[in-house]
Amino acid sequence: MDKQLDVAIIMGSDSDLPIMSEVAKFLDDMKICYEMKILSVHRCPDEAIDYAKSLKEKNVKVIIAGAGGAAHLPGIFAAINICPVIGIPIHSKTLNGIDSLYSIVQMPTGIPVATVAINGAKNAAILATQIIGIADENIRNKLLDFKSNLKDGVIKKDSRLQDVGYKNY
Amino acid sequence: MDKQLDVAIIMGSDSDLPIMSEVAKFLDDMKICYEMKILSVHRCPDEAIDYAKSLKEKNVKVIIAGAGGAAHLPGIFAAINICPVIGIPIHSKTLNGIDSLYSIVQMPTGIPVATVAINGAKNAAILATQIIGIADENIRNKLLDFKSNLKDGVIKKDSRLQDVGYKNY
Amino acid sequence: MDKQLDVAIIMGSDSDLPIMSEVAKFLDDMKICYEMKILSVHRCPDEAIDYAKSLKEKNVKVIIAGAGGAAHLPGIFAAINICPVIGIPIHSKTLNGIDSLYSIVQMPTGIPVATVAINGAKNAAILATQIIGIADENIRNKLLDFKSNLKDGVIKKDSRLQDVGYKNY
Amino acid sequence: MDKQLDVAIIMGSDSDLPIMSEVAKFLDDMKICYEMKILSVHRCPDEAIDYAKSLKEKNVKVIIAGAGGAAHLPGIFAAINICPVIGIPIHSKTLNGIDSLYSIVQMPTGIPVATVAINGAKNAAILATQIIGIADENIRNKLLDFKSNLKDGVIKKDSRLQDVGYKNY
Amino acid sequence: MDKQLDVAIIMGSDSDLPIMSEVAKFLDDMKICYEMKILSVHRCPDEAIDYAKSLKEKNVKVIIAGAGGAAHLPGIFAAINICPVIGIPIHSKTLNGIDSLYSIVQMPTGIPVATVAINGAKNAAILATQIIGIADENIRNKLLDFKSNLKDGVIKKDSRLQDVGYKNY
Amino acid sequence: MDKQLDVAIIMGSDSDLPIMSEVAKFLDDMKICYEMKILSVHRCPDEAIDYAKSLKEKNVKVIIAGAGGAAHLPGIFAAINICPVIGIPIHSKTLNGIDSLYSIVQMPTGIPVATVAINGAKNAAILATQIIGIADENIRNKLLDFKSNLKDGVIKKDSRLQDVGYKNY
Amino acid sequence: MDKQLDVAIIMGSDSDLPIMSEVAKFLDDMKICYEMKILSVHRCPDEAIDYAKSLKEKNVKVIIAGAGGAAHLPGIFAAINICPVIGIPIHSKTLNGIDSLYSIVQMPTGIPVATVAINGAKNAAILATQIIGIADENIRNKLLDFKSNLKDGVIKKDSRLQDVGYKNY
Amino acid sequence: MDKQLDVAIIMGSDSDLPIMSEVAKFLDDMKICYEMKILSVHRCPDEAIDYAKSLKEKNVKVIIAGAGGAAHLPGIFAAINICPVIGIPIHSKTLNGIDSLYSIVQMPTGIPVATVAINGAKNAAILATQIIGIADENIRNKLLDFKSNLKDGVIKKDSRLQDVGYKNY
Repeated sequence: MDKQLDVAIIMGSDSDLPIMSEVAKFLDDMKICYEMKILSVHRCPDEAIDYAKSLKEKNVKVIIAGAGGAAHLPGIFAAINICPVIGIPIHSKTLNGIDSLYSIVQMPTGIPVATVAINGAKNAAILATQIIGIADENIRNKLLDFKSNLKDGVIKKDSRLQDVGYKNY
Repeated sequence: MDKQLDVAIIMGSDSDLPIMSEVAKFLDDMKICYEMKILSVHRCPDEAIDYAKSLKEKNVKVIIAGAGGAAHLPGIFAAINICPVIGIPIHSKTLNGIDSLYSIVQMPTGIPVATVAINGAKNAAILATQIIGIADENIRNKLLDFKSNLKDGVIKKDSRLQDVGYKNY
Repeated sequence: MDKQLDVAIIMGSDSDLPIMSEVAKFLDDMKICYEMKILSVHRCPDEAIDYAKSLKEKNVKVIIAGAGGAAHLPGIFAAINICPVIGIPIHSKTLNGIDSLYSIVQMPTGIPVATVAINGAKNAAILATQIIGIADENIRNKLLDFKSNLKDGVIKKDSRLQDVGYKNY
Repeated sequence: MDKQLDVAIIMGSDSDLPIMSEVAKFLDDMKICYEMKILSVHRCPDEAIDYAKSLKEKNVKVIIAGAGGAAHLPGIFAAINICPVIGIPIHSKTLNGIDSLYSIVQMPTGIPVATVAINGAKNAAILATQIIGIADENIRNKLLDFKSNLKDGVIKKDSRLQDVGYKNY
Repeated sequence: MDKQLDVAIIMGSDSDLPIMSEVAKFLDDMKICYEMKILSVHRCPDEAIDYAKSLKEKNVKVIIAGAGGAAHLPGIFAAINICPVIGIPIHSKTLNGIDSLYSIVQMPTGIPVATVAINGAKNAAILATQIIGIADENIRNKLLDFKSNLKDGVIKKDSRLQDVGYKNY
Repeated sequence: MDKQLDVAIIMGSDSDLPIMSEVAKFLDDMKICYEMKILSVHRCPDEAIDYAKSLKEKNVKVIIAGAGGAAHLPGIFAAINICPVIGIPIHSKTLNGIDSLYSIVQMPTGIPVATVAINGAKNAAILATQIIGIADENIRNKLLDFKSNLKDGVIKKDSRLQDVGYKNY
Repeated sequence: MDKQLDVAIIMGSDSDLPIMSEVAKFLDDMKICYEMKILSVHRCPDEAIDYAKSLKEKNVKVIIAGAGGAAHLPGIFAAINICPVIGIPIHSKTLNGIDSLYSIVQMPTGIPVATVAINGAKNAAILATQIIGIADENIRNKLLDFKSNLKDGVIKKDSRLQDVGYKNY
Repeated sequence: MDKQLDVAIIMGSDSDLPIMSEVAKFLDDMKICYEMKILSVHRCPDEAIDYAKSLKEKNVKVIIAGAGGAAHLPGIFAAINICPVIGIPIHSKTLNGIDSLYSIVQMPTGIPVATVAINGAKNAAILATQIIGIADENIRNKLLDFKSNLKDGVIKKDSRLQDVGYKNY
């Protein structure tokens, strides 16, 4: 791969793909170069750790890892790399994602994981874009556009509410 | 090491040692051969993973791992080994050990961790002893003695209560 | 029963059978000899306790007990036996299985229950197999195969993702 | 024992005695006949179950059982007896007594345990007294006195507040 | 009403009726005389309090009150009466009944509410029957029958499991 | 706007409109003058803050703000205004609205938000009406009517229960 | 009492006085006329309900009620009155005030309680002042002063931080 | 200020300073240029928002905001800026920091906050350093040193454990 890899997206299972796809979609929109992998630190630890180490050589800028339940994937990638790692707690069937959230956010001193909301895949992508944008004015301009669109979306909804009233919205 | 290693005890930080020492004390009483290591899967992942792999060659029978917060140590050892791994959720300052418990017990299908109570280090040692005892009648007899002593302890306390009454206990 | 009984599987109600069947399926695959019983320590305490005691004479190696709500079954079997007892917290309607988990994992010192994830029946079976495998190289080889298949499953999914991309997965 | 036994008080450990003594104190005040036992369903299951069965023959009216953590004592006594069983969740070190509460209150259909507040030993005694009072006007009169004193206590405190003001209370 | 009223069943809303009907059904089976009322301490406090006071004159033996959310009904009936009050925490839409449970079980010293499981209406009825049974051998015999049927139900299910196996159950 | 604005209703997203409409409906019934806006303090902070400040000049009496997840809207409006702000925690998909509740109710000293139940939009409207009613006897009379209707509704349901019994209700 | 009573402050026990005194202190500062009572809806229900009704005749503007555990006091006062009722969840020993919070905030539709943070007594007083201030410019000016002082306090602290640095703060 | 500002550290109250100082200490060690401010979005919203906007002009790279309870500070700074915002949930007295965590991490789509552990101030600083290090090899080398020291610290502790044993550690 000649092009610089900016973001690595990792998930522990393809059952997380519907959520994790939102990361890819946003990075596609931002034209940020990424790789996306299904790799379980529990089911294929060697492959996961080898991949984590390979990211050092590829000078990846940001790692985004999503996992549910006893969610160890983001923490292990953070242990191996010195680039920022963003963790997405995936909503779990039995404990509503509280297990995923605690397993990801409560990292010990020395090894942070930048945690977003439960199922907050799009926000993870935005955060990665913000991080990359620090050194890239073009990206920052795209983020300003995105923020502007966010604002316009709310204002348009409010206008509609003022026009038609709550009963006809 | 000529003697067969039965149990490996691992903790992520020496702050866990006061709790984890209860494991060693019980195994000492049971004359079960063990190794005890401080090894963080977050702070020294290579060393932790190398050690986890070395346990395969040593034919260790049971692994006992204690960790707090986003507690990944037991899960990673379970990912690498096929012997039973017992996890001890260490009581954490901010979330009362609920984070440790969820991070250890909610393992994905395929990679179990045998979880005991928060700070349940002695019970982890007893469980390891029970596991080893399956193939060792001598150990089973020691467990019967231990159970008998447990019983006697309660009965003695009850006798004292019957003798002196609750006001003078 | 002439053949050595390796595992006893107990559940408190037949409503737990869809989950508990996963234990039997895995042990079937591993060709491990087991018994499966519906026995409630609350609804038929005498029968449950008699059965728990009978397991001592049968030299059962591992007990697997699943229960939901105020889940006392695993703890009572652990009180009576000295073999390892694995507890499966069954997901409950009102409290998402947190009640089951706490009732099983928070055992007092002296009487451990090896707790797996909420509804983690297959992991309970794997854990029992790992325990039995300590003294049985044939079983250990099967576990290595199982672990290898787990790994291959993830790698195959990742290959497919690399081939077709997230939009066509 | 010639005198009719009204209440059996059971606790799993003498560490629960400071809380459980409040039961005895209230029953002493009410002149209700009781027995108090330290008996663990986990550490001495045979003795606990034998005692539970003996209560049937003694025609005990109410059983009060206190336990902490994976608190199985009240549920097992309820399984064996048909008299009402009152459960007291004892405050636990790691989970604030939520584990004790869920283990006691979330009993399956068919086997109720009348649960009071965490550490609510005095309320357990009052509830037992209310139950006994249904068929005993003398006891009911004592309960009316008790309730009247409760009321007077609050009114006296309010009078003092009105007299001295909040700054001097 | 010439016949002695044994149990008063109260609920805060008719949305609780599907759950609370289980109380009536069990008491019908036990031929225990009861009244059933919809009365909200929040929406019609005067009527609720008047009814609570009327129960004193009717010498009702047991009060069963079910409520959800900020569930104050059982506590207020307990404040006014000296007979035992059983509280049923009704499962709530937003907080899974944890709000109902805490609002009912965590009563202050002096005013106990005998709390059963979330949605545990049948257990509330059984508990009331146990309380009434203390002074009524006929009721106790019915409870022994009920317990015997509970046991037979489990044993029959287990027999079926032994006969047909888990795959055909 | 010539007419005095009494209440401002704000929500962070039109996905909250089905819940927040209950506020408008109740205020319509009470003939209380209100404005309703979709305004996100996260997506359009300038517009939200400008609107919050405009309410000072309009002498709005009460602000009602609903938000879910990390729900900051009510708190920011409370920071900017000195009129009472009522916060409605909207039920969230992943954490059942506990996140919304804690984000709204746990305000720091100096800046209160009057918090109602999760999804308690109608109660927010009633509370606003009560606040406005302090200085408006006409409104107070409507509230007395509303309370009277609440009471009648319960009493009618109870009458029906007494008439047809629980089986035919 | 000739002077118009603006606020009634009620607490269930004098153990809540250290927290509830903050309400009185703030109202003293604001020169708002109040009454303060210790009155338990559980221990002296008649007195509590009589007092709640008396507030209707006194035309009290706002009721502030603090309670812990199964905290029913604010809800019952809200049931009886049509003025706004502010509830203060008092921190409880065993459940950190979560029981108090849920018991107060999760009121049923029709009967709101304006809930503030756990132990948020001062905020309850500020909220009452804001409510009274709607119709009283003098009070609104005091609130503007209070808000201004809040702001100045933060700015002064920040200035000190800028002056001395974090090491000498 | 001629020098480029890399990080802005903001806290809502000087009571958070003991925790937030760890951010400054780490950035001092890394020789990263920062500003540190006490600014409450609740107590001085204008100043907080003005400062948040000023950071856009200063081209600050990363914002670190710590707050407790209903913690809105990080979210508001994220709403106004397009650089990454790191949130530190400060441990709260009544709810153990769960309120702070949920208020910070559960941000709506579009406005991420990179959340670290409760009281995880040092990890916030490390994460900011990692983000800045993407475009700065010198910083990356310092992070490699830091990670190496972390590793050495654990290995040294383990060596000591192997030397002196757990009893003399």
